[in-house]
Amino acid sequence: MANGGPEIEQLIQLLARLPGLGPRSARRAVLQLIKKKEQLMIPLSAALDRAVVAVRSCEVCGNVDTISPCTICSDPRRGESGMLIVVEDVADLWALERAGVGAVRYHVLGGVLSPLDGVGPQDISINELIARAPEFSEIVLAVNATVEGQTTAHYITDRLAGSDIKVTRLAHGVPVGGELDYLDEGTLSQALKARTLI
Amino acid sequence: MANGGPEIEQLIQLLARLPGLGPRSARRAVLQLIKKKEQLMIPLSAALDRAVVAVRSCEVCGNVDTISPCTICSDPRRGESGMLIVVEDVADLWALERAGVGAVRYHVLGGVLSPLDGVGPQDISINELIARAPEFSEIVLAVNATVEGQTTAHYITDRLAGSDIKVTRLAHGVPVGGELDYLDEGTLSQALKARTLI
Repeated sequence: MANGGPEIEQLIQLLARLPGLGPRSARRAVLQLIKKKEQLMIPLSAALDRAVVAVRSCEVCGNVDTISPCTICSDPRRGESGMLIVVEDVADLWALERAGVGAVRYHVLGGVLSPLDGVGPQDISINELIARAPEFSEIVLAVNATVEGQTTAHYITDRLAGSDIKVTRLAHGVPVGGELDYLDEGTLSQALKARTLI
Repeated sequence: MANGGPEIEQLIQLLARLPGLGPRSARRAVLQLIKKKEQLMIPLSAALDRAVVAVRSCEVCGNVDTISPCTICSDPRRGESGMLIVVEDVADLWALERAGVGAVRYHVLGGVLSPLDGVGPQDISINELIARAPEFSEIVLAVNATVEGQTTAHYITDRLAGSDIKVTRLAHGVPVGGELDYLDEGTLSQALKARTLI
């Protein structure tokens, strides 16, 4: 196939590996990049160059940032609440920050325990979490409500048993804006159990 | 919002401008890039750098390539058929090449006539097409089957009237693998009119 030389072909193949883009949409994206060379392709190329150099993992919490310890770990006001939110992934940390949960600190596990896939406590940053835990008064296990997520939460709770750190989890319930009709029975029954006064 | 410094935020905003990616999927894409720094982010950064330098528009046909005239225009075998396929966009050229339409040449209009949007014959490369036309024995107007596409096809046909160049268009009919039930009436009646012997 003779469209556009190896540079273009390689760009298509690399973009197609991004989540949300397949080979067809990667081709459309590359055409868009070529059409908007000045406004899009050159800035994106420069932004990627900068990111390659600058982006690193935070040695404390596992967040990604351009400094380590990251912006969140370096902010002294974030320590005052005494709350540490434990998440599976950086994406979850970003989601909580977008939700504006306040001046808290985070710990990114980098995965969940999954005996079937051979993921044990050594493979995710649980030991690092246990080591940090005494700095905090409350640890919120904001792991996903999946079997692996809940297994991980139980394991962490067991490891922290005996300390005087309060260990909590996110509330289950009806999503804001959600319709009852579309919710699963487990969520509905949890939402009824945890009902609150209006 | 304190997630990840301006380098990461800027990368998200630029990726979100690609077709097929919104702000949410751009964020997921950036996280993927950061996670797979060696296998994905660095190669993509390098590929974009190379593309910025190398990619250009073909001065003859409007295709994108790393050489101008492009690979297709430089290939002498492509001239032997005497067939020039006129398309709206580079994406259409790529689609025809993937379909393996054979040793033909192309002309990319870079748009279609659209009086309502103020796009006239000077705004797309119609004059360049008329200038190239005498080199070919047949011109296939492979424009989209939209009102603007058909207007453009009529305009080009008028401009070429009086020359002895054969002007054709793509056949209308049932898409291969398509179900009659889902086809519009226009396509079905065209497909019946243009029926062929089995």
